[in-house]
Amino acid sequence: MPDINPLLNNDYPLLPMMNKKILVLGAGRSSSVLIDFLLDHAEPNSWHVTVGDLDQAMAEERVSAHPCGRALAFDIHDAAHRQIIRDFDLVISMLPAAFHFSVAEVCAEAGINMLTASYVSDEIKALAETFENNGVGLIMELGLDPGIDHMSAMKVLDRIRTAGSTLKAFETFTGGLLAPSQDGNPWQYKFTWNPRNVVLAGQGYVKFLQEGRYKYIPYQRLFRRTEVIYIPEHGYFEGYANRDSLKYLDAYKLHGIKTLYRGTLRRVGFCKAWDVFVQLGATDDTFQMQNVSEMTHRQFINSFLSYNPTDSVELKLAHYLNIDRDSEEMFKLNWLGMFDDELVGLDQGTPAQVLEHILKKKWTIAPDEKDMIVMWHRFEYEEDGVHKQLQSYMAVEGEDAVHTAMSKTVGLPLAVAAKLILTGDLAVRGVQIPTEKYIYEPILDELENHGVNFKEVEIK
Amino acid sequence: MPDINPLLNNDYPLLPMMNKKILVLGAGRSSSVLIDFLLDHAEPNSWHVTVGDLDQAMAEERVSAHPCGRALAFDIHDAAHRQIIRDFDLVISMLPAAFHFSVAEVCAEAGINMLTASYVSDEIKALAETFENNGVGLIMELGLDPGIDHMSAMKVLDRIRTAGSTLKAFETFTGGLLAPSQDGNPWQYKFTWNPRNVVLAGQGYVKFLQEGRYKYIPYQRLFRRTEVIYIPEHGYFEGYANRDSLKYLDAYKLHGIKTLYRGTLRRVGFCKAWDVFVQLGATDDTFQMQNVSEMTHRQFINSFLSYNPTDSVELKLAHYLNIDRDSEEMFKLNWLGMFDDELVGLDQGTPAQVLEHILKKKWTIAPDEKDMIVMWHRFEYEEDGVHKQLQSYMAVEGEDAVHTAMSKTVGLPLAVAAKLILTGDLAVRGVQIPTEKYIYEPILDELENHGVNFKEVEIK
Repeated sequence: MPDINPLLNNDYPLLPMMNKKILVLGAGRSSSVLIDFLLDHAEPNSWHVTVGDLDQAMAEERVSAHPCGRALAFDIHDAAHRQIIRDFDLVISMLPAAFHFSVAEVCAEAGINMLTASYVSDEIKALAETFENNGVGLIMELGLDPGIDHMSAMKVLDRIRTAGSTLKAFETFTGGLLAPSQDGNPWQYKFTWNPRNVVLAGQGYVKFLQEGRYKYIPYQRLFRRTEVIYIPEHGYFEGYANRDSLKYLDAYKLHGIKTLYRGTLRRVGFCKAWDVFVQLGATDDTFQMQNVSEMTHRQFINSFLSYNPTDSVELKLAHYLNIDRDSEEMFKLNWLGMFDDELVGLDQGTPAQVLEHILKKKWTIAPDEKDMIVMWHRFEYEEDGVHKQLQSYMAVEGEDAVHTAMSKTVGLPLAVAAKLILTGDLAVRGVQIPTEKYIYEPILDELENHGVNFKEVEIK
Repeated sequence: MPDINPLLNNDYPLLPMMNKKILVLGAGRSSSVLIDFLLDHAEPNSWHVTVGDLDQAMAEERVSAHPCGRALAFDIHDAAHRQIIRDFDLVISMLPAAFHFSVAEVCAEAGINMLTASYVSDEIKALAETFENNGVGLIMELGLDPGIDHMSAMKVLDRIRTAGSTLKAFETFTGGLLAPSQDGNPWQYKFTWNPRNVVLAGQGYVKFLQEGRYKYIPYQRLFRRTEVIYIPEHGYFEGYANRDSLKYLDAYKLHGIKTLYRGTLRRVGFCKAWDVFVQLGATDDTFQMQNVSEMTHRQFINSFLSYNPTDSVELKLAHYLNIDRDSEEMFKLNWLGMFDDELVGLDQGTPAQVLEHILKKKWTIAPDEKDMIVMWHRFEYEEDGVHKQLQSYMAVEGEDAVHTAMSKTVGLPLAVAAKLILTGDLAVRGVQIPTEKYIYEPILDELENHGVNFKEVEIK
């Protein structure tokens, strides 16, 4: 790799007043709001913001010639590049989760504070002592989900417990959706996050706790075991369960609670229609299909149905899955073009890959389309012998296809935490997630100033 | 391990006339008919039959003091024991599939003919040249399924092709069942083979070819995509598809065929009731359940159903899976005791392990109960421009819980092949499966003398 790194060339043109140096690794779409925030706050705070990405042009696009910003070609696999990290006061890694460890290793050893939005791994947990001994910290799970969910839930949970009340139930749902619109998309859904993860969502086994009983849902029933949830101001949604709710028993200190359920929100009617793909086997990612290069949308669907020389694919599907020919589900499939004689346009693929490719034709967000994030918690507790229920919720809309609600809610907690650390208002040691009050309280307070507001409403 | 091996002690009491030495490794239930056959034919053929097993008592039970037989403590992990193999003229390995390679290695090098009922592995295929160079052969897939299915199908397929006809379709089904009885078991099924494999059957993805189209069935639909099959003299059965029918395109030289389907036979009504377990998620083997030691049958079923403070487990299940409260499926579950307040009796387990344990309470075959093997092939072809259909089928009943139809149909092909090899009527070189005429023809002929008869009936 040519030596194109200005840091290594030692001619890094820092503005004279800038005394805090921030490094953001990863300049993908989900970094847009984070980087904008840091640049907007750079001058008054004397920050210098460096954005590193394998694709330097992408990093430059994010910085867009801001006087306090610099773009950098950065390759995590290059040892010299990794040494650049030592030059900074704070590092925010937006790289794919697998690369955080390589960044964290340098930060821990060099005593640099670090932030990420990804789940803590055992490998990274083992660096806690080094971070601590060098007087700095790494906060992980500091995006939307995990991130804002931890903080907003713990705020209420801690308050209920501090008041001496006893928790009975906790449910929490988050959804990445489209903002309400009248464009006629019957799914009211498009991809606003990694499409592959959306197609594979829910595979594996779901575990949760309901009224003191352990409950299990297999993938083949997941999208038919939904809950309808009403969120004030925003109306009705449906939620399906996430993989393992039980792990929050530890994380949120909820041992002894009777009901614990964590789920994903969709618009009403989504899950029943998505279940058509699940029942067909069209979301399977374990084997390569035959003859994909010549396959049409219609043939893709037909490959999961019995052979019949006369019946239509539509009728076979409706009969197989016991849905009406004129049902909402059939309409949704038609709208996607699933029965069209159009070539898929891939040379090979698993069913999940073929499905993702077809869905992208209709589910790719347009430049001016707005997405939306909705989060909802329900708390049940006993206060002085009285049974009470409280809901806490927030919704954020995106501005366009780049400044999405997703990138806002993932990026703002990181940005705000960066500000608090650099101004000395937050000090973290070791490896943490934001479930402790000294971390979540100042971050949530600051998030309110940027449009991430939770409302609390009692449920009577 | 004490030196209890008579071979190693060099005082091996061969009867004077015995000039062929056969070694059977593995004395489990499935070896019973094989060993009986070899001992029955030992004296007139001058054979000496040695049965080796980790459990010498079990080997002794199988030999039951026959003058031409000897039992041997045999540990495949013991290098000295493996050297014993060199002393024999023919080795039949009934060990678990993973151990065949260690036996085959010695046989190939020492120039000893060998037989097994297991699928060929790539590792074993690599020994073909050594077997060949030393003038001997290993025949694998020489049991029931794989084994009799290969031979009986290829006999008809080769005949049709030799006559110049064009094959259009081939379907093949095999089932290990209970013999017809009036004992009131509504499943008409018990475990006659590895129970764990029965519980996990069908997991993964099914592929087959129908009228020139590739078709796929996911696990969650497999037991509802059954075919009803009428077998003359034996009545109606239902069949569900096996994992990958497409691999028989090569094995049976069927490229160009329009329909290729391989499946498993059950009694009518089995699959719809079994599908209840599939839909609940009760056959999942990927995670440990909570609190298994205190779990009753009823609680096991309830853990897959929604919480409700008043509704019964029976009603919740019937409603969830859209079956009538008084349906055949509910009756079958009741008969198994699935709704009983009886403890499961395990300390821990996956859903599949818990289910297997409960099923064994009712599905363990009694000492005097008879099992049954049914195999059915359907061939469609064009002969001189005329479309024809032929079916070929066989059924074998067991004698009791030891001399089962399963052990007969697995053991007899091996036993018969052993006889043909030792009498010089069959010579095999390298590593083979019985899809070639010179192998399957003499074996099928001899099997007919032992009750394994295929009948052919045209389908009009």
